[in-house]
Amino acid sequence: MKPQIHTLPNGFRIVTEAMPGMKSASVGVWVNAGGRHERIEQNGIAHFLEHMAFKGTARRTALQIAEEIEDVGGYINAYTTREVTAFYARVLENDVPLAVDVIADILRNPTFDEKEIEIERGVILQEIGQALDTPDDLIFDWLQDAAYPDQPIGRTILGPAERVRSFDQADLANFVTDHYRADQMILAAAGAVDHDEIVRQAEALFGDMPQRSKLQFEPAKFHSGERREVKDLEQVHFALALQCPSYMDDDVYTSQIYASALGGGMSSRLFQEVREKRGLCYTIFAQAGSYADTGMMTIYAGTSGDDIDDLATLTVDELKRAATDISEVEIARARTQMKAGMLMGLESPSNRAERLARMLAIWDRIPDLDEIVERIDAVNATDVRGFAEKMAHGNEIALALYGPMAADAPDLDGLKRRLAS
Amino acid sequence: MKPQIHTLPNGFRIVTEAMPGMKSASVGVWVNAGGRHERIEQNGIAHFLEHMAFKGTARRTALQIAEEIEDVGGYINAYTTREVTAFYARVLENDVPLAVDVIADILRNPTFDEKEIEIERGVILQEIGQALDTPDDLIFDWLQDAAYPDQPIGRTILGPAERVRSFDQADLANFVTDHYRADQMILAAAGAVDHDEIVRQAEALFGDMPQRSKLQFEPAKFHSGERREVKDLEQVHFALALQCPSYMDDDVYTSQIYASALGGGMSSRLFQEVREKRGLCYTIFAQAGSYADTGMMTIYAGTSGDDIDDLATLTVDELKRAATDISEVEIARARTQMKAGMLMGLESPSNRAERLARMLAIWDRIPDLDEIVERIDAVNATDVRGFAEKMAHGNEIALALYGPMAADAPDLDGLKRRLAS
Repeated sequence: MKPQIHTLPNGFRIVTEAMPGMKSASVGVWVNAGGRHERIEQNGIAHFLEHMAFKGTARRTALQIAEEIEDVGGYINAYTTREVTAFYARVLENDVPLAVDVIADILRNPTFDEKEIEIERGVILQEIGQALDTPDDLIFDWLQDAAYPDQPIGRTILGPAERVRSFDQADLANFVTDHYRADQMILAAAGAVDHDEIVRQAEALFGDMPQRSKLQFEPAKFHSGERREVKDLEQVHFALALQCPSYMDDDVYTSQIYASALGGGMSSRLFQEVREKRGLCYTIFAQAGSYADTGMMTIYAGTSGDDIDDLATLTVDELKRAATDISEVEIARARTQMKAGMLMGLESPSNRAERLARMLAIWDRIPDLDEIVERIDAVNATDVRGFAEKMAHGNEIALALYGPMAADAPDLDGLKRRLAS
Repeated sequence: MKPQIHTLPNGFRIVTEAMPGMKSASVGVWVNAGGRHERIEQNGIAHFLEHMAFKGTARRTALQIAEEIEDVGGYINAYTTREVTAFYARVLENDVPLAVDVIADILRNPTFDEKEIEIERGVILQEIGQALDTPDDLIFDWLQDAAYPDQPIGRTILGPAERVRSFDQADLANFVTDHYRADQMILAAAGAVDHDEIVRQAEALFGDMPQRSKLQFEPAKFHSGERREVKDLEQVHFALALQCPSYMDDDVYTSQIYASALGGGMSSRLFQEVREKRGLCYTIFAQAGSYADTGMMTIYAGTSGDDIDDLATLTVDELKRAATDISEVEIARARTQMKAGMLMGLESPSNRAERLARMLAIWDRIPDLDEIVERIDAVNATDVRGFAEKMAHGNEIALALYGPMAADAPDLDGLKRRLAS
């Protein structure tokens, strides 16, 4: 089936894709509002709002929101990223209209009851505590901060505890007014769905939203930076970031294929050199992520304090080596992995709905799979070597380290020198 | 489509289910060998074997294993539980024969090269370090140990570092000889699969395995026990276990519905009372797990040191209250959640293949969905109240606590007294 798109007069967009044979559907609204849309004093408010959406509306108490979806065996959830807040549900076929109704209600009619704000503040402070207790979560927040210092995109999604303690009803309402606008929302649905029915429902539920001009966000600027802390843990958690293309850039697929060949699977260079040949870690991977105006390739590994030097050196050497000898065979494998991974991912309604929303937000259309496959297939080893060369020389790099490392553990300057040598 | 089952003369079983519309498949072999099949000096060896399977066979190097699957865009992985070791791959339609061939090869022909054993030992020691750095992983190992002290089923899957340091080639080979037997293996496949083709291939690859008599494992005995450690963390990690039915018991669905109503979703009692009304935690849940001869309902939450008393007390009070006033409405919701969750889960080839293997291992047949639905629908509020009453009175309970708690933080005896009062 082909995705079908419909835009309401106020700019609210709907995209659906029916998947034959499915008895359930995933449906959600993706709002173009995330951590990077926050001013510094607002840091954490997009995520706070995500929580408050479930705490009661003009029509439903918090309990009723949960019960109405769970009474039919569905589930409802939400997440916040640097660029997006998403509210979604997975339900059986007949319950799609209910799911759309509940999601519209929590988005449009939240009451932000003062008492509920206080309770939810406690929940979020616990969520922050949980993140701080998880070194391999924390390290990625540090890396983001090191790469984008003093910028909205570099701050945490959850926000610091002191900010979370300060938000009130007016702060929440103001952020909604500024960012939860009709033309910044996409309703996406995949699985056992009927396009016309969802469009009719969306017209009734979102058609009266006012249209407002788009707020600009601060352009991101990737910097070389470092954040490290010695801590009595079992492992040193090591994370390295390299500046990469945005999803608007022509070479975004080159960066993804590079990351895949470098550290995307068991046959990748980092997995083979660091784990398979030397046994220095359990987890190691590279992946390329992208935003509207920047991108970041992340390499992560956890190792012991004794081995962090070797691991960091090997990682940097693999980054260099890729620039000279990455082969067509490796690139062909990475291309195939990307294409097959995409096909397999699309067999899940949740993944498919999310992809529809993301594609529509980026390109204002849903590219055919053939078009994506063509772009992936166009990337060859020469492109990737050239890209790796750019990554190794004169590119910005950020480093985060957390754990039981010695005073002479690798630092950013040393790694940069080695990479450029 | 209906699942199709075939048994080879040596007892090796094959179960497949074609899913119309799918372009990919999940295929794997589930071996009836896990942590509970280990003698104490073997603790960690089932998991070590899981790792060594990927480190080279008579026909393929470690790199070739990875490359052959990733060349076609698939992925291959494995996991070890207390009862099972599973090796599985997800591939596109045409690559199912390749996946079966690779899985058969790593299962039947691993070389256990001495040098590779040394390297993989390092990887597993890092994996242990990673688990120790993750409080909300560690707490479940402690809970298991508290509930099943000095028993194979109570030990960790990874094993202690000192055991992992001791295993050699002969240890690995002996465990394979004892436990990797034809009649203890199930090949399960779901998605774009052809039953007859897979059976023919399995005959060729597994048909010559010798049949041996089944080794018994030590029956599990759930005890009341406690494990706690003060640690400078952000949260106190709290985990409570109640003795529950095994998957062979008639009331296994009652236990699952009880756990779901108590802490299975946003409308559940624990979520509502502890998080939604009081904001004491971010994560809280209850779930009922089962083994061949025992079962365990686990309740987990993370909270601050100041709030652990309230959280533990509230949790116990909810366990008690369920015995007197859980309603038909709540039970109906839990039943619907279970049924819908099953249907939605079955839309994924990986979940479906895993379920086929599990059902066949337990019942030596694949029950119709209707049969399961009937068993779920047969559970009513009276059953659940009676079950909750049994849980609250005279039942064994185990407790694990880890984090910044005071000396007078809740202990097992206090919680048991409150529960029984």
